[in-house]
Amino acid sequence: MSSSPTRGGAPRALRSAVATALLGCAIAAQGPVAAQALNDVQPAQSPLVLKARGSFFIGGEQVERSAVELGGFGPADRITINQMYVDYMVADGADKVPVVLVHGATLTGKSYDTTPDGRMGWYEYFVRNGHPTYVVDQIGRGRSGFDASVFNSARAKDLAPDAPPAVLRLGDRFGAWTNFRIGPEPDSAFPETKFPVEAAAEFSKQGVPDLLGASRAANPNWKALAALARELDGAVLLSHSQSGPYPLKSAIIDPHGIRAIVMIEPGTCGAATHSDAEIESLARIPTLIVFGDYLAADTRLPAPNWKARFDDCEQFKKRVDAAGGDVRLMTTTEAGLRGNSHMLMMDTNNLQIADLILYWISTKNGGARF
Amino acid sequence: MSSSPTRGGAPRALRSAVATALLGCAIAAQGPVAAQALNDVQPAQSPLVLKARGSFFIGGEQVERSAVELGGFGPADRITINQMYVDYMVADGADKVPVVLVHGATLTGKSYDTTPDGRMGWYEYFVRNGHPTYVVDQIGRGRSGFDASVFNSARAKDLAPDAPPAVLRLGDRFGAWTNFRIGPEPDSAFPETKFPVEAAAEFSKQGVPDLLGASRAANPNWKALAALARELDGAVLLSHSQSGPYPLKSAIIDPHGIRAIVMIEPGTCGAATHSDAEIESLARIPTLIVFGDYLAADTRLPAPNWKARFDDCEQFKKRVDAAGGDVRLMTTTEAGLRGNSHMLMMDTNNLQIADLILYWISTKNGGARF
Repeated sequence: MSSSPTRGGAPRALRSAVATALLGCAIAAQGPVAAQALNDVQPAQSPLVLKARGSFFIGGEQVERSAVELGGFGPADRITINQMYVDYMVADGADKVPVVLVHGATLTGKSYDTTPDGRMGWYEYFVRNGHPTYVVDQIGRGRSGFDASVFNSARAKDLAPDAPPAVLRLGDRFGAWTNFRIGPEPDSAFPETKFPVEAAAEFSKQGVPDLLGASRAANPNWKALAALARELDGAVLLSHSQSGPYPLKSAIIDPHGIRAIVMIEPGTCGAATHSDAEIESLARIPTLIVFGDYLAADTRLPAPNWKARFDDCEQFKKRVDAAGGDVRLMTTTEAGLRGNSHMLMMDTNNLQIADLILYWISTKNGGARF
Repeated sequence: MSSSPTRGGAPRALRSAVATALLGCAIAAQGPVAAQALNDVQPAQSPLVLKARGSFFIGGEQVERSAVELGGFGPADRITINQMYVDYMVADGADKVPVVLVHGATLTGKSYDTTPDGRMGWYEYFVRNGHPTYVVDQIGRGRSGFDASVFNSARAKDLAPDAPPAVLRLGDRFGAWTNFRIGPEPDSAFPETKFPVEAAAEFSKQGVPDLLGASRAANPNWKALAALARELDGAVLLSHSQSGPYPLKSAIIDPHGIRAIVMIEPGTCGAATHSDAEIESLARIPTLIVFGDYLAADTRLPAPNWKARFDDCEQFKKRVDAAGGDVRLMTTTEAGLRGNSHMLMMDTNNLQIADLILYWISTKNGGARF
């Protein structure tokens, strides 16, 4: 990857000599706790020294809205839609490639912060490992917000009742427990599960309404992530689940900021959907795809199980590799780990999984061929 | 305030000897910048050393929802509603009372982070001044989410089109520019305005749909903030605008964690709405109320102007002081500052305003009388 300075002044290049994340290094799994309340949060053992931190927005379009569309409090006015909220931290001395963390369906950037049982999440861990790290809320939820105009118009009967999109929320028993492979049946965990099951009720609190689940055909997140990577002058895009394919879509829109792609249990790799030209473009970007354990388990949802999604990614890998690409598709079981759920960033061995990813990133020092 | 240790191990007591915020100390105002994009963000001059940081949730109730209510993707399931997202940072060596920052209408906790023109916000500044600082997203928006069931039910025609609440969003010209007293007319600024007008388009991006604007009669945020203050074993609740009266409501529910209250341009102080018993209870908690400049300006919205809101707070102060209370009601103009808008935490002299607040907190070392 480029050795030009980041905005903060440190060289972005990954130097293998300082790669701190080593394959298979032992991270002690935390014992179970009652739940993630304030008193369960476990502060780190050493201070976090930040050169910079804060938040900003990427993109956004100004649109005019009627009084009704704005909820009827004031007059017609202008608002901004399709902006993406970005929260970031840069450790003092950080000298590695920036990483952008993108969450999955009905969740927010919170996915990558403190785990439901109060342990350190990937956000802080990546920062501590020298990567300037950027956590987004997908456009359509969280601090990125959404355009509520259509809901207000339907309420005022200016539009049909079914004009608004369905608002998706994944429930605890099936949306999360069985679908995320915590266990085969709600409230029954796989014997070796790494999900912090005692904190499942805390995980439920991370759920938010997902306003873009119904509009994936032209998802504004793709463009925003491409723009963020470009503004960062090069970044690794790391996606999860619903956002799994976003980095691919972003790269097809504008590949120039995307140094590498990491897809954590992508909902789809879209093996059959990409044109040959798109595959050729994607073949220039090193890509890591990671899946957990129990892939063939019944999700109990009317959707493909995770084995089917893995198989789709295997087909994707074949196409990209055939075009000269560099796709590493792996399962955590391959690395000798057992019991990982769909929520790899929250599992009790989450930092060990992070080490695998950080190590892979360190080996792709050259990054994308643009 | 109590001298018992905070969770992080540092004494919580405010020691006047180490009060770093002095009335009237000069903070150089930043010059105008084009807008808050990534490249406008101004990293701090010295590293931020954190003993702890992360996020968690307060409260929340498990409820059962039908397949339709969850957006129709999976089966009926259970979700959590009314949980409050909390983001926090504690500086190494922090030894002052925790502060909870609560944002206003159609905004999120982002209000207190990096300003629209890229300067340091109150969140980081309070942390750097030794206060463990907790920033929430109000229940009903941002990372706290909201219960979308009623929207999905209306969409499916299980409920009437007008069963869902109106979803409030404040627009740029009237909701923000005139109402927040940036200027007398949209895009025309007061000559001495301290709002970073060049970044108004960036401020617009902070807007999100406000799902609880219509349900203030039983606002779950009140209870959550009282619970947060109690879990922190004592905290100052700092509110703004729509959330202005929340700390009062929280204190009426459970005063025991609330050491002091700071209300920044509260939408109302509810002078005439409190019972004598409630006023007696509130009189035990030191309270600071701060308003900016141009209070009599026409907001151009069908709502009381800010002078009327100030007057209401003056009546509130009279009642509480008569009950033996300690309410400090001030305007920034009184402190010799000119041109402050409604968004005091974003104005170009935002850290100077913060110093006024931090100084007041330091003088209320004894805190609430519980």
